[in-house]
Amino acid sequence: MKDPPVAIDLDYSALFRPDLPAPAKKWGGFPPYNFVGGNNDAPSVPVEDMIEATAAVLRREGSTLATYGMQSGPQGYVPLREFVAKKLGQRSGMTVSADDILITSGSNHGLELVNAVLCAPGDVVLVEQFSYGSALSRLRKFGATPVGIPLNDDGMRMDLLAAKLAELKAEGVTPKYIYIIPTIQNPGGSILPEDRRHELLRLSEEYGVPILEDECYADLLWDGKRPPAIAAMGEGGNRVIHVGSFSKTIAPALRVGYVAADWGVLGRMVAVKNDGGTGALEQMMLAEYCNTKFDGHIDSLVVTLKGKLDVIIEALEENFGTTAEFTPTKGGIFQWITLPDHVDTMKLAQAAAAEGIAINPGPEWASDAEPARNRFRLCFGSPSLEEIREGVKRLSVICHREFGVPVRAANIERD
Amino acid sequence: MKDPPVAIDLDYSALFRPDLPAPAKKWGGFPPYNFVGGNNDAPSVPVEDMIEATAAVLRREGSTLATYGMQSGPQGYVPLREFVAKKLGQRSGMTVSADDILITSGSNHGLELVNAVLCAPGDVVLVEQFSYGSALSRLRKFGATPVGIPLNDDGMRMDLLAAKLAELKAEGVTPKYIYIIPTIQNPGGSILPEDRRHELLRLSEEYGVPILEDECYADLLWDGKRPPAIAAMGEGGNRVIHVGSFSKTIAPALRVGYVAADWGVLGRMVAVKNDGGTGALEQMMLAEYCNTKFDGHIDSLVVTLKGKLDVIIEALEENFGTTAEFTPTKGGIFQWITLPDHVDTMKLAQAAAAEGIAINPGPEWASDAEPARNRFRLCFGSPSLEEIREGVKRLSVICHREFGVPVRAANIERD
Repeated sequence: MKDPPVAIDLDYSALFRPDLPAPAKKWGGFPPYNFVGGNNDAPSVPVEDMIEATAAVLRREGSTLATYGMQSGPQGYVPLREFVAKKLGQRSGMTVSADDILITSGSNHGLELVNAVLCAPGDVVLVEQFSYGSALSRLRKFGATPVGIPLNDDGMRMDLLAAKLAELKAEGVTPKYIYIIPTIQNPGGSILPEDRRHELLRLSEEYGVPILEDECYADLLWDGKRPPAIAAMGEGGNRVIHVGSFSKTIAPALRVGYVAADWGVLGRMVAVKNDGGTGALEQMMLAEYCNTKFDGHIDSLVVTLKGKLDVIIEALEENFGTTAEFTPTKGGIFQWITLPDHVDTMKLAQAAAAEGIAINPGPEWASDAEPARNRFRLCFGSPSLEEIREGVKRLSVICHREFGVPVRAANIERD
Repeated sequence: MKDPPVAIDLDYSALFRPDLPAPAKKWGGFPPYNFVGGNNDAPSVPVEDMIEATAAVLRREGSTLATYGMQSGPQGYVPLREFVAKKLGQRSGMTVSADDILITSGSNHGLELVNAVLCAPGDVVLVEQFSYGSALSRLRKFGATPVGIPLNDDGMRMDLLAAKLAELKAEGVTPKYIYIIPTIQNPGGSILPEDRRHELLRLSEEYGVPILEDECYADLLWDGKRPPAIAAMGEGGNRVIHVGSFSKTIAPALRVGYVAADWGVLGRMVAVKNDGGTGALEQMMLAEYCNTKFDGHIDSLVVTLKGKLDVIIEALEENFGTTAEFTPTKGGIFQWITLPDHVDTMKLAQAAAAEGIAINPGPEWASDAEPARNRFRLCFGSPSLEEIREGVKRLSVICHREFGVPVRAANIERD
């Protein structure tokens, strides 16, 4: 008899693609003070209503799960597309129908599909100077270069956008699109005024550059006041691709987002969406739930989130004093903060992580690291009020230890 | 007052990536006789049990939906990974734990992630000569070339695999992996015997080429008899990446599949899986449902599918007679059929589509079109028994009209 065969492990290193990111580490759970990620308030998840919605929709049409895409085709579950179209009409001022909507597996998937149809290595995409970290890393993964346009308290500066477009044109470069988060800018929390939206569309037309409008946070406004979406403005024509999500309004672990666009672009995105469809159960439950409960849920969630913002602002003022500069966000789940020039938030984030506090250092949320060096983002949707108070307090102690500021914190003079 | 701005549409053609597929057409519903796609038997969807499972799991832990990945991290919902590990032990003979599993959005997503970590343009991947169409198109999308190894009634021929590996080695080419569907080969329906599985592992070791084992249909065997998975064989070491799915066993519109692999590979796949997680509600429902109901559901589904196979075989014999050659599949949801040499199934599929009958022409399921020219695949999971009988009958009439065979069909001599 032969000896049993002995496994000799293969060395994969010569087989891997050369440009892979570092391997993942095994997940060790969330840190005790978790101020990163688009997580939301756990008690606000409408569990019983979700159960009821799931039962109703499955009992009515559960057997359609036996076919890819149910009876709705590759754009996604028709009743959910109809709800999205209705919501975009009521809340964003857009005139769209279910035919103009593509359901995606989260809004990130929408961004991925936009890149897949527009971006090739070497391309330039204009972005807000400080912008959504995953959008920036996704662009870089495609080999595209995000070029930042500076912001002020109202969002992207149109004079500097115009200057950059002219400069690029002189170099023979047409950016593939302008990526903007106009309503609750990520991370700045600003709302782009209506006149700037019109100016943006004018520049888009002048230079032949489409706009990718990301409205993931636009349903979570403290006072409900906002200009129409850029995609709602008549002069936009087919130039605005609009993405949104149910992650922030209902629950992020449900992977459901959407794109609204002219079929000339949307049909291209449908053609490269080779995933066999977005998860049907989540689409069905959301359509059933949202049709009657979305507005009420948002009204209540916004109150909860505003309460958490108030607590984090209070904790920042109490523990950081004038060391932390910020304009309170006008909605959403995060606050952007500027520290004194000498503070390096990459180092602060590292020191904080070692003590169980997770924050987003500015350079990870920026087209260029340097202007974001002393800034950081705190997400407040998920932590409890007590975790917010204690986490910010501990962060101030770490910041003091590493950078000497804030000099006074938690009402105790340090040193 | 200025005139209202007029929208001038943008011409996207200069902005699109040059290598895009054709734009999608708007979906017009399924054809009346739909023999394509991994769709399943609609009455077999366990709707009431799904409702019960969803209610139980959401009531217990629904509020975890407020965080990306729930409390399970990027590999997916821990109870579902535990069920997959248990199932792979019981049904495939594998020894794996939840830590070795990555939940994906369908098994296609698993194939996508394998390509993302291993394949670069110009790479070679060895495949069965006739193989899963989406796997082949996905490889081509990555710029890799699928090179086919001929099959016989038992699956991939190991002598020809050995010859191809030697030939490639002489040219200095190391294939990135060997893609194989050993248990219910797609489209052939064969089961690779155990001795060939050992030989495959020996060749994998000799040439330093990993194996991607796709077991999407392996739970749907008529007689339940099968060799252990290739990934279960001790001498495989870290060389086998194993993918599977709940699409064929529970429902395809639920987008849930899995990968089992050594962490050295799996950790790389986790690092490039930048989708914010696979849909939580589907994972939670499946874990809850499958833990107690999977085996009973499969027992009953297999009886239903075998009944449909019997009807399609009967219809083929009645309408095509000896014109259609085939070996009845040993499980699953499709039958592979060979027609006389002069029949071009691409043309047959086109003519059939015009009359509401969808079939998979062989060339779409083949590494090289020519040997598959006169073959086609019929999926029988989704159509009703009546649709199967009528659809096959109509197909025979179309085939006779276009290619003169079968000469006799539906008990009526033609011409």
